[in-house]
Amino acid sequence: MPTISKKGQLMPQSPIRKLVPYAEQAEKMGKSIYYLNIGQPDIKTPKIALQAVKDSTIDVLAYSRSEGSEAYRQKIASYYLNHDIQVKHDDIIVTTGGSEALLFAFGSIMDVDDEIIIPEPFYANYNGFSTASGVKVVPVISKIEDNFALPPIEAFEKLITPKTKAILICNPGNPTGYLYSKEEIKKLSEIVKKHDLFLIADEVYREFAYDGNTHYSVMQEAGLEEHAIMIDSVSKRYSMCGARIGCLVSKNKTVIATALKFAQARLSPPTLAQIASEAALETPQSYFDAVIEEYVDRRNTLISELQKIDGVKVAKPKGAFYCIAELPVKNSDDFAQWLLEHFSIDNETIMVAPAGGFYSTPGVGINQIRIAYVLNKESLIRAVKILREALKVYKD
Amino acid sequence: MPTISKKGQLMPQSPIRKLVPYAEQAEKMGKSIYYLNIGQPDIKTPKIALQAVKDSTIDVLAYSRSEGSEAYRQKIASYYLNHDIQVKHDDIIVTTGGSEALLFAFGSIMDVDDEIIIPEPFYANYNGFSTASGVKVVPVISKIEDNFALPPIEAFEKLITPKTKAILICNPGNPTGYLYSKEEIKKLSEIVKKHDLFLIADEVYREFAYDGNTHYSVMQEAGLEEHAIMIDSVSKRYSMCGARIGCLVSKNKTVIATALKFAQARLSPPTLAQIASEAALETPQSYFDAVIEEYVDRRNTLISELQKIDGVKVAKPKGAFYCIAELPVKNSDDFAQWLLEHFSIDNETIMVAPAGGFYSTPGVGINQIRIAYVLNKESLIRAVKILREALKVYKD
Ligand SMILES: Cc1ncc(COP(=O)(O)O)c(C=O)c1O
Ligand SMILES: Cc1ncc(COP(=O)(O)O)c(C=O)c1O
Repeated sequence: MPTISKKGQLMPQSPIRKLVPYAEQAEKMGKSIYYLNIGQPDIKTPKIALQAVKDSTIDVLAYSRSEGSEAYRQKIASYYLNHDIQVKHDDIIVTTGGSEALLFAFGSIMDVDDEIIIPEPFYANYNGFSTASGVKVVPVISKIEDNFALPPIEAFEKLITPKTKAILICNPGNPTGYLYSKEEIKKLSEIVKKHDLFLIADEVYREFAYDGNTHYSVMQEAGLEEHAIMIDSVSKRYSMCGARIGCLVSKNKTVIATALKFAQARLSPPTLAQIASEAALETPQSYFDAVIEEYVDRRNTLISELQKIDGVKVAKPKGAFYCIAELPVKNSDDFAQWLLEHFSIDNETIMVAPAGGFYSTPGVGINQIRIAYVLNKESLIRAVKILREALKVYKD
Repeated sequence: MPTISKKGQLMPQSPIRKLVPYAEQAEKMGKSIYYLNIGQPDIKTPKIALQAVKDSTIDVLAYSRSEGSEAYRQKIASYYLNHDIQVKHDDIIVTTGGSEALLFAFGSIMDVDDEIIIPEPFYANYNGFSTASGVKVVPVISKIEDNFALPPIEAFEKLITPKTKAILICNPGNPTGYLYSKEEIKKLSEIVKKHDLFLIADEVYREFAYDGNTHYSVMQEAGLEEHAIMIDSVSKRYSMCGARIGCLVSKNKTVIATALKFAQARLSPPTLAQIASEAALETPQSYFDAVIEEYVDRRNTLISELQKIDGVKVAKPKGAFYCIAELPVKNSDDFAQWLLEHFSIDNETIMVAPAGGFYSTPGVGINQIRIAYVLNKESLIRAVKILREALKVYKD
C-alpha cells in the first residue's frame, strides 16, 4: 500500500474536531447544545451583500483574475483609505478567505525548516499552515494574568535565530480577544526591522475593537512597508464566513509578485462571493455600530457571569469575540468531552473549545477553554450557568 | 530588507501571463483579439445552477463543513454512481476548485524532494503545485505524432526511483485533448501497484469525450482502490469556472483522512458555490448533448482548418477542448508575442498559449502552441485564417 506524506501525518487535527462525534451523539440522544466552540457568528449577513448576488445577471460564471477582480480591489483599497491605511489596489491580492492569504504569505516568505515566532495562545490553524509549509512554529507565551498582552520584547529577541523569517500576530486576537496597542505594534516594528524579518498581522477581526479602543494596523506604521503583511477577510466583518473571500495586503512589491504566482496556480478566487463582498463594502456604519454594541453587551455578560464562578480565571477581551477562561479542572479536553457525554441541565449542555490546541508549548493551557460569544445574551447566560453547575459536580 | 522564500522565487509564472501586457496594449490600440489561450468556456452556465443561488433564503452566509456539505457530497456520490463509479459520500472531499484538490493530494502524499511522474505536455499549474510543495516533477514525453497517447510503460518504469510517490495523468488531457483508453489505464494500474505508488487522475474534463469514446476513470479500475486519487471539478462540466468547486475522491481512507486535515485548516469550501453546484447536478442530459455536439463541431472545424496550413502539424483531440499544434516557427513564445504586437487582419489578431510552458523538459515543445476551442465556429475559422496569414509573413 502506498504511504502518505510525513507532513500529512504531522498535520494537526482541529482542536474541536475530536469532540464532534460526542456532540453528534449528544444531539442524537435529544440534548440541545450551546455551541461556544466555533467562530461562526449568528449575526445576519448584510442584506446588500446577499442581494447583489441575487441581482447579478451573469450567464457564464467565469474565472475572475487571479489577484481578484479589478473593481473589487479598487473598492477594498478605498475601504482601507477610510480606515487610515494608505494602500493601492495593486498592494492587494484577493484570496479564498483569510486562510488562503495565510497560506500564500507562508509560501511566499518561508521554506521548509524556517521559523516563525507566534505569541501563544494562537489561532490553531497557524499550526496547520505551518505544517503544510514545513515551517517551524516558535511560540512565545503570553499570559492570562496580563490579558494576553504582548510578551516582553526580550522574549522575542531570545528566540530569533538565523532561520527566523517572521513574527506573526493576530490583532485583535483569536483566541485571546486581546487588542494590541500602538506601542506594542511599534515595539514589534522595531524588532522586525532590526532583524530583517517580516511581520505578518492577521487582522481579520480588525472591526471588532471595543471600549473606545481603536485598532492600529501594521499597515499604518511608517517605515514598516517592506516588512508588513496584513491578512484580512470578509468572514467575520460581515458575518459571511461561507463567502470565502479574504486578502493579502503588502507594500512590499516582491511579496505581492510572489503571492501572485501562488494565486495564479489556483486560477481565481470565488466569483459569486466577490460580487457579494464588493457589495458588502456599501454596508452602512450603523450595521457595525449595532453589531459592536451587541458583541460588547455579550462580552460584558459573559465575563461577569464567568467571574462569578469560583476558581474560574478569565481574561477581559478588548476585541474579536472570544475569551479564554481558566477552569478548576486538570484537563479541559476531558472536561469538554464529559460535558457532551455526561452532563446536562434540562437536557441542555455546552460545547467549548479546549485551549490546549491553541498553544504549541506542550502542557500549557490544558486547563483553559476558549468561549466564542457568538450566541445571544440569554443563551450565554444559560450556557455559563450550565458550566457553573457542571464544575460543581465534575471530578477529574 | 527581508527576503522571500526560495520556493517563492522558483514558483513558475503562468505561460500566458507574459503575454497579457501585450494583449492589453493591443486592445488599447483598438485591435480585437480572439482569445484562444485560456480554458474559460463561452458556454452558458446551466440556469438551474445560477437560479438556485438566487432562490436561496440564507440569511447568515456561514461556513460549510470542511469536507463539503453533507447534502452535496451525497449528491455527487449519486452522480458518480450514474457514471459507473462506485463511491460513497465519505470517499469525497469538496474542494475550492480542482486546483485545491490537487494541492491537497500533493500535500497528503508527498514531502519535499519526493518525485511525481507526469506525461508531458501537461497542465502548466502542475508545476506550480509541485513547486509550492517542494516536489520534483519527472516528465515522460508523449508525442504529437501519437496524438499524445500514453508513452510506453517502460518509459515510466525507467524513471521510478525510491523517491517516486505517484504518477499523475490528466484524462482527457489539457493541453493534449488525448483520452486514455481502458487499456492504457490498466497499464498504469499495473505499474502503480507493482511499485506501490499513487495514481492521481485529473478528470476535470471527464464529461468531454468525443467520437463515441467513453471515459474510463481510475475509480472504475478494480484493485486500484488504495492507489487511485481522482481530481474533479464543476468548472468545465457546467461552465462554472468561477464557482471554485471541485473535489478529491479516493477509496483510500488514509488519503481521505489526511486530505481532510488540510481541508480543516482552511475551514470551508465556498458556500454559495456549493449551492450552485448541488443544483447543477440536476442539469439534464440534453444540456451535455448540446454542449458536446458544439465542441465536436468546433474541434472538427478547428482541426480541418489547421490541417490546411502548410507546415502545421496537429494532434486530433478525442476529449476536453484543447489541441496542440506544431508551427513552422522556431519559438512560439516570440511568435505569440509578435501576433499581439505586430500582426492583424482587419484590426483583428489572436492570442495563443505557447506550449513550452506545458513541458518541463527544456527545449521541448517550443515550436508548439495550445489552442482552446472555447469560441464559436465562425470565430475559430476567422482565428485560424489569421494564424495562416501570420505564418506567411512571420520571420523568426
Ligand atoms: C484569527 C483568524 N485568522 C484567520 C481565520 C480564517 O478565516 P477565513 O478563512 O474565513 O477568512 C480565522 C477564522 O476563524 C481566524 O479566527
Ligand atoms: C487539467 C486541469 N486540471 C485542473 C484545473 C483546475 O480547474 P479548477 O480549479 O477551476 O477546478 C484545470 C483548469 O483549467 C485544468 O485544465
